[in-house]
Amino acid sequence: MQTYPRSMSRDDESARHELHLAACIDDALTSSRGGAGGPFAARVVRGDAVLAVGWNQVTSANDPTAHAEVQAIRAACRTLGTFQLTGCTLYTSCEPCPMCLGAIYWARPSAVVFAATRHDAAAAGFDDALVYEEIARSPGARRIPFEHVPHPRAAEPFAAWVVLPDRIRY
Amino acid sequence: MQTYPRSMSRDDESARHELHLAACIDDALTSSRGGAGGPFAARVVRGDAVLAVGWNQVTSANDPTAHAEVQAIRAACRTLGTFQLTGCTLYTSCEPCPMCLGAIYWARPSAVVFAATRHDAAAAGFDDALVYEEIARSPGARRIPFEHVPHPRAAEPFAAWVVLPDRIRY
Repeated sequence: MQTYPRSMSRDDESARHELHLAACIDDALTSSRGGAGGPFAARVVRGDAVLAVGWNQVTSANDPTAHAEVQAIRAACRTLGTFQLTGCTLYTSCEPCPMCLGAIYWARPSAVVFAATRHDAAAAGFDDALVYEEIARSPGARRIPFEHVPHPRAAEPFAAWVVLPDRIRY
Repeated sequence: MQTYPRSMSRDDESARHELHLAACIDDALTSSRGGAGGPFAARVVRGDAVLAVGWNQVTSANDPTAHAEVQAIRAACRTLGTFQLTGCTLYTSCEPCPMCLGAIYWARPSAVVFAATRHDAAAAGFDDALVYEEIARSPGARRIPFEHVPHPRAAEPFAAWVVLPDRIRY
């Protein structure tokens, strides 16, 4: 059972979702038609404030990590001066790919709301589904081979980290 | 059966792996002790050239996506002026987390070589394993709720994209 803050009804929440998703869809259309990259946009919202927007810029920025959600998360963190998005909602025009899902878990917003699904993305040629499948495989069995090469000093960075007096956990 | 280019023996490859992993481990130690972030570093190599290095900067840059592999991929793409790392090898001090694995699939290097494993990372307090588990769950069943809110215009960005004459696939 979902709970609502004072003065916020389910209708209010639905209207809010519709408003922010429509804005993401508009941004996705505008940015992709303008040549920024793929047809995806996202925004980070806290209460009534839109903290940041983001859209896909992979091909225009030559950055394969510049997906809409990553861009919105990075911008919201710059706005807030923190690396955590506690209490925020991430809206996105489409279900996040595994990279963006991972970014979401590291940023820890309180919720994610998306409109289109990974299957809609796949039908348009965006192969998120492949990456979801590959993640579940063992490292050596993937299309891009992930080779574990044991190294005698592999544990040194962790051993140094756990005794670092001023380490900041994230 | 792995094949080797002319004049490259298995011993050569092992020596190359050892060299680059040791450099990643050194960078992970130096950067985390210096307060950049967690104890992780990576580099992108093509042939004999180190195209880019990266290290974790989550807490110093206030960027939850600034993992070592993401930083190295972004830097290598800036160096090359492209969003694809065809023919490159990504070396990393530790097995990539799901976000970095996703970034790797979008950047498409030819191989990934890592020293420590996700279990070593978990023992030092880095909860990659949780994210691997969460990815496999249905959106609504995750610790961070992912809510699919259908929108009547959700398909518009994709419909516009597939007929865009100058779209650049990635």
